[in-house]
Amino acid sequence: MMSDYSRKQLQEEKVFKDPVHRYVHVRDQVIWDLVKTKEFQRLRRIKQLGTLYLAFHSAEHSRFNHSLGVYEIVRRMIENFEEYPEWNNDDRLLALAAALLHDLGHGPFSHTFEDIFHTDHEEYTRKIILENTEVNAVLSKVSPDFPREVAEVINKTHPNKLVISMISSQIDADRMDYLQRDSYYTGVSYGTFDMERILRVMRPSKDEVLIKESGMHAVEDYLMSRYQMYWQVYFHPVSRGGEVMLNLVMQRAKALYKSDYSFKQQPTYFIPFFNENVTVHDYLRLDEMVVNFYLQEWVQEDDEILSDLAGRFVNRDLFKYLPFDGSIITISELNELYKKAGIDPDYYVFSDSYSDLPYDYDRPGQNRNRRPIHLLRPNGDIREISSQSAIINSITGIHRLGSRLYYPKEKILAIKDLSVKAEIINLLNELD
Amino acid sequence: MMSDYSRKQLQEEKVFKDPVHRYVHVRDQVIWDLVKTKEFQRLRRIKQLGTLYLAFHSAEHSRFNHSLGVYEIVRRMIENFEEYPEWNNDDRLLALAAALLHDLGHGPFSHTFEDIFHTDHEEYTRKIILENTEVNAVLSKVSPDFPREVAEVINKTHPNKLVISMISSQIDADRMDYLQRDSYYTGVSYGTFDMERILRVMRPSKDEVLIKESGMHAVEDYLMSRYQMYWQVYFHPVSRGGEVMLNLVMQRAKALYKSDYSFKQQPTYFIPFFNENVTVHDYLRLDEMVVNFYLQEWVQEDDEILSDLAGRFVNRDLFKYLPFDGSIITISELNELYKKAGIDPDYYVFSDSYSDLPYDYDRPGQNRNRRPIHLLRPNGDIREISSQSAIINSITGIHRLGSRLYYPKEKILAIKDLSVKAEIINLLNELD
Amino acid sequence: MMSDYSRKQLQEEKVFKDPVHRYVHVRDQVIWDLVKTKEFQRLRRIKQLGTLYLAFHSAEHSRFNHSLGVYEIVRRMIENFEEYPEWNNDDRLLALAAALLHDLGHGPFSHTFEDIFHTDHEEYTRKIILENTEVNAVLSKVSPDFPREVAEVINKTHPNKLVISMISSQIDADRMDYLQRDSYYTGVSYGTFDMERILRVMRPSKDEVLIKESGMHAVEDYLMSRYQMYWQVYFHPVSRGGEVMLNLVMQRAKALYKSDYSFKQQPTYFIPFFNENVTVHDYLRLDEMVVNFYLQEWVQEDDEILSDLAGRFVNRDLFKYLPFDGSIITISELNELYKKAGIDPDYYVFSDSYSDLPYDYDRPGQNRNRRPIHLLRPNGDIREISSQSAIINSITGIHRLGSRLYYPKEKILAIKDLSVKAEIINLLNELD
Amino acid sequence: MMSDYSRKQLQEEKVFKDPVHRYVHVRDQVIWDLVKTKEFQRLRRIKQLGTLYLAFHSAEHSRFNHSLGVYEIVRRMIENFEEYPEWNNDDRLLALAAALLHDLGHGPFSHTFEDIFHTDHEEYTRKIILENTEVNAVLSKVSPDFPREVAEVINKTHPNKLVISMISSQIDADRMDYLQRDSYYTGVSYGTFDMERILRVMRPSKDEVLIKESGMHAVEDYLMSRYQMYWQVYFHPVSRGGEVMLNLVMQRAKALYKSDYSFKQQPTYFIPFFNENVTVHDYLRLDEMVVNFYLQEWVQEDDEILSDLAGRFVNRDLFKYLPFDGSIITISELNELYKKAGIDPDYYVFSDSYSDLPYDYDRPGQNRNRRPIHLLRPNGDIREISSQSAIINSITGIHRLGSRLYYPKEKILAIKDLSVKAEIINLLNELD
Repeated sequence: MMSDYSRKQLQEEKVFKDPVHRYVHVRDQVIWDLVKTKEFQRLRRIKQLGTLYLAFHSAEHSRFNHSLGVYEIVRRMIENFEEYPEWNNDDRLLALAAALLHDLGHGPFSHTFEDIFHTDHEEYTRKIILENTEVNAVLSKVSPDFPREVAEVINKTHPNKLVISMISSQIDADRMDYLQRDSYYTGVSYGTFDMERILRVMRPSKDEVLIKESGMHAVEDYLMSRYQMYWQVYFHPVSRGGEVMLNLVMQRAKALYKSDYSFKQQPTYFIPFFNENVTVHDYLRLDEMVVNFYLQEWVQEDDEILSDLAGRFVNRDLFKYLPFDGSIITISELNELYKKAGIDPDYYVFSDSYSDLPYDYDRPGQNRNRRPIHLLRPNGDIREISSQSAIINSITGIHRLGSRLYYPKEKILAIKDLSVKAEIINLLNELD
Repeated sequence: MMSDYSRKQLQEEKVFKDPVHRYVHVRDQVIWDLVKTKEFQRLRRIKQLGTLYLAFHSAEHSRFNHSLGVYEIVRRMIENFEEYPEWNNDDRLLALAAALLHDLGHGPFSHTFEDIFHTDHEEYTRKIILENTEVNAVLSKVSPDFPREVAEVINKTHPNKLVISMISSQIDADRMDYLQRDSYYTGVSYGTFDMERILRVMRPSKDEVLIKESGMHAVEDYLMSRYQMYWQVYFHPVSRGGEVMLNLVMQRAKALYKSDYSFKQQPTYFIPFFNENVTVHDYLRLDEMVVNFYLQEWVQEDDEILSDLAGRFVNRDLFKYLPFDGSIITISELNELYKKAGIDPDYYVFSDSYSDLPYDYDRPGQNRNRRPIHLLRPNGDIREISSQSAIINSITGIHRLGSRLYYPKEKILAIKDLSVKAEIINLLNELD
Repeated sequence: MMSDYSRKQLQEEKVFKDPVHRYVHVRDQVIWDLVKTKEFQRLRRIKQLGTLYLAFHSAEHSRFNHSLGVYEIVRRMIENFEEYPEWNNDDRLLALAAALLHDLGHGPFSHTFEDIFHTDHEEYTRKIILENTEVNAVLSKVSPDFPREVAEVINKTHPNKLVISMISSQIDADRMDYLQRDSYYTGVSYGTFDMERILRVMRPSKDEVLIKESGMHAVEDYLMSRYQMYWQVYFHPVSRGGEVMLNLVMQRAKALYKSDYSFKQQPTYFIPFFNENVTVHDYLRLDEMVVNFYLQEWVQEDDEILSDLAGRFVNRDLFKYLPFDGSIITISELNELYKKAGIDPDYYVFSDSYSDLPYDYDRPGQNRNRRPIHLLRPNGDIREISSQSAIINSITGIHRLGSRLYYPKEKILAIKDLSVKAEIINLLNELD
Repeated sequence: MMSDYSRKQLQEEKVFKDPVHRYVHVRDQVIWDLVKTKEFQRLRRIKQLGTLYLAFHSAEHSRFNHSLGVYEIVRRMIENFEEYPEWNNDDRLLALAAALLHDLGHGPFSHTFEDIFHTDHEEYTRKIILENTEVNAVLSKVSPDFPREVAEVINKTHPNKLVISMISSQIDADRMDYLQRDSYYTGVSYGTFDMERILRVMRPSKDEVLIKESGMHAVEDYLMSRYQMYWQVYFHPVSRGGEVMLNLVMQRAKALYKSDYSFKQQPTYFIPFFNENVTVHDYLRLDEMVVNFYLQEWVQEDDEILSDLAGRFVNRDLFKYLPFDGSIITISELNELYKKAGIDPDYYVFSDSYSDLPYDYDRPGQNRNRRPIHLLRPNGDIREISSQSAIINSITGIHRLGSRLYYPKEKILAIKDLSVKAEIINLLNELD
């Protein structure tokens, strides 16, 4: 049973001015109250694109910014869905809340942190929603079950597959917002597509959002935008290089902690992470501000490696990079050479791989949770999109990969053993 | 004598993708080296608009971002100026470096910090340029005098008034960048004007940049944009409310320090500020990341006022505001009432004033450093712009003022002495 | 009594892709049928901005284009109004139809034609709606009175002042569309303002659309946009020069017709205009295509003046212009000089005046049909906007004027009588 | 030998405000004089996209508009090329003039007219440049050979392959302008790509413009834009339906003329076309204004077919369409049925086909004039682009086809012989 609170409307609609969607509109008291919680406000202190600002200086926007955008897109979806019997308006608040909160558990530089500290932002999203937080208090006022329901939608385990597909699918509010938003903030021309048209051709059905066949070309454009954004923006070598740097500095700090190194400034906020025993409270307070504070502190530490790596990140003095696929030399062979040269390979060479699958779907017997984009024909038939679109067919299932080697050029140039130095330099030249 | 270094060009032009100017172009080794210095990189950790993100969630861009923009505009100015004999291309690097570095001394939330700690960002810009920094090292390689020259341009004391006017005047690269950039990031429609046209009608002259008369309407549009940005964006009550909050929390922290309060986390970075004895090194390391770290720490402090105010800022739980001009009640009368109610007036009520002068110029005998915008007629005559433009004339010299009272509504509602409570509430209602 | 037809909805919403409003949405069968009428389709053959394409080559859009835009804005207004009791939804179709059809009676180059042939586009709008046309047939199916009602709204005589003010007032759908649209097509940066915000702050009241006080700055921006568009775009001397050319060629053709000149191609479509006896049928068939056809024909005519003037318009070989206010020489003195020089002053010199009143309103006792823009305060009070806005106050009632003299420079240079030639050239130089 | 005139610069640069490229810059007297010729001004009276305005109401821009845009892009290309030794600046004016004039021979609704009257716009471009015209006079002043050279570049027979490739290749100024321009005017989101980046990565070489490998993704985006524009915009069924209508009405008029039908208004301008004996003078005077004039005249003709078809075009009362590939019924079978039904199949049924090849190149032995897009690697190697780009590879050589049947629905519904009527309707239903 939903409470009166769940239906409470603001006396006057509130709007957020938004450069991507022009305005974000809020009518529901619940949504307004969620925005005001300290856990949601915390998302202002986490950049949407982590280290990408090191490559695209203008991409400094936060996850708060993006979360409002996803909410707004779902709100507009529902506005269109309301005239179809397949849409049950009782799911409205569930969809809106899940949209708003879908990234609630992201921490600073998620990729790197999850890699090093084995945290999982999806798990913490769930915990923040279900444990003793302001967000949980607001959601619980809707109904005692509501926090669990919201968490299940975000977790993709909720029985309502339609609502899940609005937020998590190959053409969902999350992707539509971030492609446009990241495009807007970086200033690139790639992330544009006609979202208004896509929203107009979306149709609710029992288990998913369908796309009217007449909207196929708009979806083509969206998938191409996505493809370009990945290769032109998200995988930018300088941004990945920033992550590499962070990865190495965090590894070093953790190793020092584990070896009882005595920090000048005790890394209080990090200790639960080093110990891999992180409560929701620990998790929430480690935002980018705090990480940056410690990075600055670490520049002053006596440990040369920690100080050097932290300073490199803070001052954007990143490693150089080269294409690298292990064919000319393996990373372990390189490690050996580093040791001969007296450079610690754990902290001064890094092989970084990345990949993208622009569009794919599970064939019979497959179960990789890749639900197709389905077109709805005028006669009611459903077709998987790549069977109808030559251009989408041409990219379906294509798994593109890339990898690079990161290394500190000036450290290589300073190797004293000239033969080792020459050997390494020759190898790097071959990679180029 | 300028060194060879001053003329050194990059092997290939570097570009920064920029959403406002599309691309920022760098050819000079000096500029490239300046961008890489740690003092310039630090500007990534200072928001261009301070607390404005609390009102416009999307305005999260940094001073780094803006500084590149100002540089790019000056670069384009020079590209146009090169065909005029009034332009001496020996001043090119001076203008570019001064443009790039003009905001180098900004700290976090400058307004508030300068108010409380009596620092002055212009003074620190000068010091960072002239003292022992990476920026100084780069500039000194151009010529031993070059750092001083750059500082004098930024300081408006350099004999070359033309170069100064490119960066600091009523229609300069700084303003043209920030109006467009802040408009882009907030998403408002106000800050648009035809910069390309303004650049085309700018003409270098001995002491200033002149505007060809045919470009008058573009300047009208620019001045109107500026006017609107001030009143619609920069003076937004929620943004000012964030500054009020910061102001109060900094005052409290300083007062506690001065009274030997024992902080749980020693406010190391702040101590030179509390003591008003701030070296360049102290100054540079206190960026927004560090300020936010301490604000989070202070939430945990035992002092109730510090903890409350810090938490309010961190979680955007700001004071309410009302128009206030002191006519219904003075601030000291209000202070008395607060004391009766048992609320500390030093930290829980704040009268905030702001004002803007859209355009003005010094008349004979005046000396307020308000140089007019001058139009250049086809026959070579010079005219002050408001004498030619009805619309500019209508706003010239109009000093618009505003002020607001900030207070914590729920604290007022919780006053136990019912008559004092009623008295305060009645007064606030009268203000509304 | 409204017919069932008046409520008939299209099976599926139709949309027009529109670069200014993104999409124009049509749900009503009546609107759809009106768009399909031949009288409305005819608006595709009339440029929105007449001769402005001669100054701004990209401004080639039609009145059809603009009419759909005005309709769409009124549709959005109503969408917002529907939640207020002051709005009577029975007026919906009336407002939409009047918006769509408000320019129906415009002919080619209206200004010039109305000047020469004493037609009046408002009168013909009325006639097309009320006489035997396809538009009338569609409207009559709504109810027998409906054509008259629509005409009265457009004519500003309908008792429903609220609906009139949506389409014709100092901040109406017509102006909001054309400022943005003309700005888009010319490519200038002036016509931008935040229409979405203005629509959000509009409130229906008994006799007019009110603006919530909080939207005042958006209205300021709109009025400034309007001001700039008039002076920077609509009054452009080359566009006015095109009108001058048309004016003269039409005068010549008419004079020839009146003097029984024998045209090679009988000016059939023009004859009713020359005789000032124009039926709706005559009026409708004279579109820009036809006018241009005759202009091309006239180039072949034996009459030298007609041939010369027509060729000048067709090939954009326009007169030169100078500022002119009659103080240095009067137009009749100039005419005398022309006669001495053997040039016909009726066709080779033209004094063109224009003026704009950015905003004004009738004070008590005045009756110039200038209804103020009214702000609605939170407490329900109404305020005329210039009393609240310094910037609007500064332009209220300012009537700006301009005038120019147009003349064919090469004809002056070819005057044989050297003393007359010198006299004229000296005078023109003085004007410069 | 080039004349002094070829080097003559305007006293002050002229600019055209352009919504797509912001400004079009002209410095050369030759270019300025070419723009002023009557043949170039005539392009204002020819729509860039023919009948597309019937589908996208806002696409009303002219070939004049586009021609300036192509000129401007080539101007910017040259600005970048000037620093490379592979660029010979003696070719500058040739490239600019060819860019400006490349569409000079387009007539109204070229596709249809060329189909019916067997004219060829490329041939007339050549003739206008080489015969007795104002354009020829201007070009001849540069040098006696210059007209021929310009014509050869446009004709792709000039020995300078580099200049040709700037204007006519798979990534040329023509396409880059029209994709962006048509996107701007229709308002669709498809035609956007980063032209500024493409210009930056273009490198002149002996025989063609090369693309620096680092710009590959921008080219991908451009090719995808092109692909989408063809299928979403240029092949729009309503636009093609307008061409069908024109085709039929022109065929009818020609047939009537050939059978000595007595027109009320003699179709003077059309007679050379009907006789397929069209001089440059005849060709130039038949612009869209004239065509529309005659179409309106023909509505009044006694011939019912001519009158009906002309009226349908003028009032946008187009045929319906269905997908059609000849598999269910052939067009000749359909013609037979039409005859039984008493409807003339020559004028009331039309099978329309269209196709697009997004990218392709000639393999060894092929000679279809499809020159590849070549990437330039840092080491100087050249690579055909589809060998480097997975996404381009996926569309290379894919020839997409479409075809539709156009017919007048209400005429079918009015067939009196009920069995024939039923047969036709059943067939059409099968097509659907």
